[in-house]
Amino acid sequence: MAVAAHHQDVSPNGAAADHVEDPIAALYALCQDDMTAVNALILQRMQSDVSLIPQIAGHIIAAGGKRLRPLLTLSTARLCGYQGEKHIGLAATVEFIHTATLLHDDVVDESGLRRGADTANAVWGNKPSVLVGDFLFSRAFLQMVHAGSLEILEILSHASAIIAQGEVQQLMTANDITTDEAGYLDVISSKTAALFAAACQISAVLAKRPEKETTALHTYGLNLGIAFQLVDDCLDYAAQEEQLGKALGDDFRDGKITLPVILAISQADDKERAFWRRTLEELDHHEGDFDHALMLIKKYDALEISLARAEKYSVAAVEALKQFPASPYRDALTSVATASVARAT
Amino acid sequence: MAVAAHHQDVSPNGAAADHVEDPIAALYALCQDDMTAVNALILQRMQSDVSLIPQIAGHIIAAGGKRLRPLLTLSTARLCGYQGEKHIGLAATVEFIHTATLLHDDVVDESGLRRGADTANAVWGNKPSVLVGDFLFSRAFLQMVHAGSLEILEILSHASAIIAQGEVQQLMTANDITTDEAGYLDVISSKTAALFAAACQISAVLAKRPEKETTALHTYGLNLGIAFQLVDDCLDYAAQEEQLGKALGDDFRDGKITLPVILAISQADDKERAFWRRTLEELDHHEGDFDHALMLIKKYDALEISLARAEKYSVAAVEALKQFPASPYRDALTSVATASVARAT
Repeated sequence: MAVAAHHQDVSPNGAAADHVEDPIAALYALCQDDMTAVNALILQRMQSDVSLIPQIAGHIIAAGGKRLRPLLTLSTARLCGYQGEKHIGLAATVEFIHTATLLHDDVVDESGLRRGADTANAVWGNKPSVLVGDFLFSRAFLQMVHAGSLEILEILSHASAIIAQGEVQQLMTANDITTDEAGYLDVISSKTAALFAAACQISAVLAKRPEKETTALHTYGLNLGIAFQLVDDCLDYAAQEEQLGKALGDDFRDGKITLPVILAISQADDKERAFWRRTLEELDHHEGDFDHALMLIKKYDALEISLARAEKYSVAAVEALKQFPASPYRDALTSVATASVARAT
Repeated sequence: MAVAAHHQDVSPNGAAADHVEDPIAALYALCQDDMTAVNALILQRMQSDVSLIPQIAGHIIAAGGKRLRPLLTLSTARLCGYQGEKHIGLAATVEFIHTATLLHDDVVDESGLRRGADTANAVWGNKPSVLVGDFLFSRAFLQMVHAGSLEILEILSHASAIIAQGEVQQLMTANDITTDEAGYLDVISSKTAALFAAACQISAVLAKRPEKETTALHTYGLNLGIAFQLVDDCLDYAAQEEQLGKALGDDFRDGKITLPVILAISQADDKERAFWRRTLEELDHHEGDFDHALMLIKKYDALEISLARAEKYSVAAVEALKQFPASPYRDALTSVATASVARAT
């Protein structure tokens, strides 16, 4: 499988234009001036007299890379013909919400399950990470005041509740090999796609566009988010490590139940089921287990089937954009959706 | 020291009227119908299809006891002559924000410092507690939409950011015996008093009262919150355990730097300073240390001086209420402020 340069970090200060082969980098280049303003606002709004706050916030925001969610807000606002400046603050809001959820997602549980990465909590501990997440979350809602729209407050606070709900549901289904595809789709729709959807939808609200456009942008974001998460979950069993930017097999070692394993488990014989139970439920891992998992996933074409599912969502995302007239923004957003699957095929 | 029945749990379903000797219970009785509506709304808004969410939320909300913060919103709204129903939703919002911060405050840090209490995180683990806190926090902001006021959104999101900032600052000064009174007051103003202030202030905004009343209610809440936290911190070195409702000496064992120890440390000789360094900074505790700490606090009248400070804030809170005409609500709120110090003297 070939993997595009997608996971490469896009520098927040203008290096993006060098990587136009990557559709997200192309979108970044198209929104360059707006993104510069967003990055400045993020830097300004994460400041605090309590020095640990900008330290931790800066650590995670600097590592944040793609800035895909604020890019979605900026570009869909332009797609809607929005001419004001309030999309800048909303894009920063969306990135703060995303950053807060990342900080909280990295909190170590009593179970002690953790990949060894250099997360904020690994450096500073659980509690500061939680509290700085809360700070960013609060600042996100404070920032929203400037947009002057209670409807946007409703969309984003609803999305935040859905994200938290999805993360709790993910915890409850972790290490449970009876999780089915519907349960999995529920989780990724909530924990990932809800913020993609909200990030796009609020632009149409800001631009006071009719409801069919608000709905179309919500549909675009939701489907794009599902496709992205599906592909991410596939890459954990497929990509070469240096391209993925995270260690291959992390989900397997954590016992995360993602679509590739759900599909393989659904056809497993007794011996294979025992293997999945030992590795994903009991987290009892032996040398060679990951290779065996890869073999089983290949045996049932589980990656190909998962990517076909992702393709379906990607197509639905592209379809939703047809509500809007042709424009460089529509083209760029279309390419992002198409490439979301292409990066893994 | 005599201690009022203040820490006794006030049942959310009507038992409050039995304890009229307690000013908070009296305030509860005065707002009985409104509080019944708030409790119903809290129960309704913490529901989710993901069963772990109402389980954890219910655990902490049921244990929540006094409901002082929503009571402040309800009673100050009535003090302002507010006749609508939106104060119910705002009171629930305030309680959700408080509950979310409680859940996050109980997250175990890597340092492993923890009293052995039956907190949500001790039962379910860190991560679910964090995520359910996020859920409640998001629902709080969602609930705010119904109040229809961006100014209220601004006040509450600002207060939430200040709370998180205060908690981070508290972490940074924990176990640091060079913390001074100003630093301590900064922390308690942020982590405790900011939400008291916001809970009162939003009522005047909701009731569209002039700015001097908005300011007066902010002043009342802020001073009441500081007085409350000061007294709580004193009780840790003074109350009898069954009356306090928490284990005596917890702050000492955690190395929390509160005003009684700050005052004792400020006058300590070399040997005493070494004692405080060993116990509060190094957390190296021996049998009899707590009694020795009590003796040193007594030696420098540190409790009496701390309570005199609390008295000053309590008086300022009462003074702010004089902006409003006499009413049963003003009387009840005055008694709450007065009793906040009286419970420890």
